Amino acid sequence: MSTSSTVLKIGVLGSGSGSNMQSVLDAIQAGTLNAEIRLVLSDVADAKILDRARNHNLPHAWLDCAPFKTKLDGQAEQRCIALLKESGVDTVVLAGFMRIVKPGLLRAFPQRVLNIHPALLPAFPGLHAWQQALEYGAKVAGCTVHFVDAGTDTGPIIIQRAVPVLPGDTAATLHARIQVEEHIAYPDALRLLSEGRLSLSGRRVELA
Amino acid sequence: MSTSSTVLKIGVLGSGSGSNMQSVLDAIQAGTLNAEIRLVLSDVADAKILDRARNHNLPHAWLDCAPFKTKLDGQAEQRCIALLKESGVDTVVLAGFMRIVKPGLLRAFPQRVLNIHPALLPAFPGLHAWQQALEYGAKVAGCTVHFVDAGTDTGPIIIQRAVPVLPGDTAATLHARIQVEEHIAYPDALRLLSEGRLSLSGRRVELA
Repeated sequence: MSTSSTVLKIGVLGSGSGSNMQSVLDAIQAGTLNAEIRLVLSDVADAKILDRARNHNLPHAWLDCAPFKTKLDGQAEQRCIALLKESGVDTVVLAGFMRIVKPGLLRAFPQRVLNIHPALLPAFPGLHAWQQALEYGAKVAGCTVHFVDAGTDTGPIIIQRAVPVLPGDTAATLHARIQVEEHIAYPDALRLLSEGRLSLSGRRVELA
Repeated sequence: MSTSSTVLKIGVLGSGSGSNMQSVLDAIQAGTLNAEIRLVLSDVADAKILDRARNHNLPHAWLDCAPFKTKLDGQAEQRCIALLKESGVDTVVLAGFMRIVKPGLLRAFPQRVLNIHPALLPAFPGLHAWQQALEYGAKVAGCTVHFVDAGTDTGPIIIQRAVPVLPGDTAATLHARIQVEEHIAYPDALRLLSEGRLSLSGRRVELA
């Protein structure tokens, strides 16, 4: 590390393949990110992200989020917070977690819950952002790493990376192009956090 | 020109310095854009864009838009359309024109009214878009050339170009960085139009 940094103790929440978690893990293993993944939780029992965790000998668990379908709330939220705290987690990384997180988790990890979104927010919040961009006819798309706040995809922005939308793009080709940038942006944002270089001025993230 | 093209007969509407008109004029004079500026109209009697027109021997006029303050409507709209048609204009280029154009102008020049906006639409429509981006804390900003439709900054997008928001940026430094891209994007978009390479699929501009 070129700058003094604190080891981040990361808990990952994901619902899908976990490719963003993989990019974080790759940066840790390459020595370019001062962090440890302490726990991987998924609300989907057979999600590939849990297989990845298992293959890398990372502590992991299925988090039963019933009766809720689209949010992390109630007893499931409490259980999630307890598991993260017991694992010594200080930084929560949402990596394709398909549920809205509620204020309980945000209060438990103030300014320490991060998300990545496949669009240049505030454009195209919500689901399938790359598809929204394509249908809108945007010519530049991208991704955003942000602190999570009480809104949906509204929190202070740490990093954005742009990609072109190219003639002939399908949802799949555009999504793949955005994911390449996601896998750079998420480790970069966590590195800035570990180096203590991020501060908030109103809703703006300033870089020291 | 590497591709066959039709000479665009451009009418420019502007309220300010006319730097975007200058970029179009520069491209014409450099032989990279097959177009003529037939008429320059400004709603601001002492706008610098009229000085520029005069200095380049371009036909120009002040367009009295009273009693309206924020739109081009009523008799002023009719006069504007008449002046443009008399000059043989087939393509209307909004270049820092600080009024909402209404359906009358759009019907007179269907799919031939273009605007440039200093943000990556649909993010930050409206006034002072670069300031909005800075205050929001966006890390990528840019500009958009689009066909004008009945909404405000909602029309089909022809070209977008991105710029980074850098630490220490002020509204002025960010605006200047965006303008550099505007002066590339507007001639590029008009070139695609002159080459007949733009078609609409729903609200998407497709590139042939």
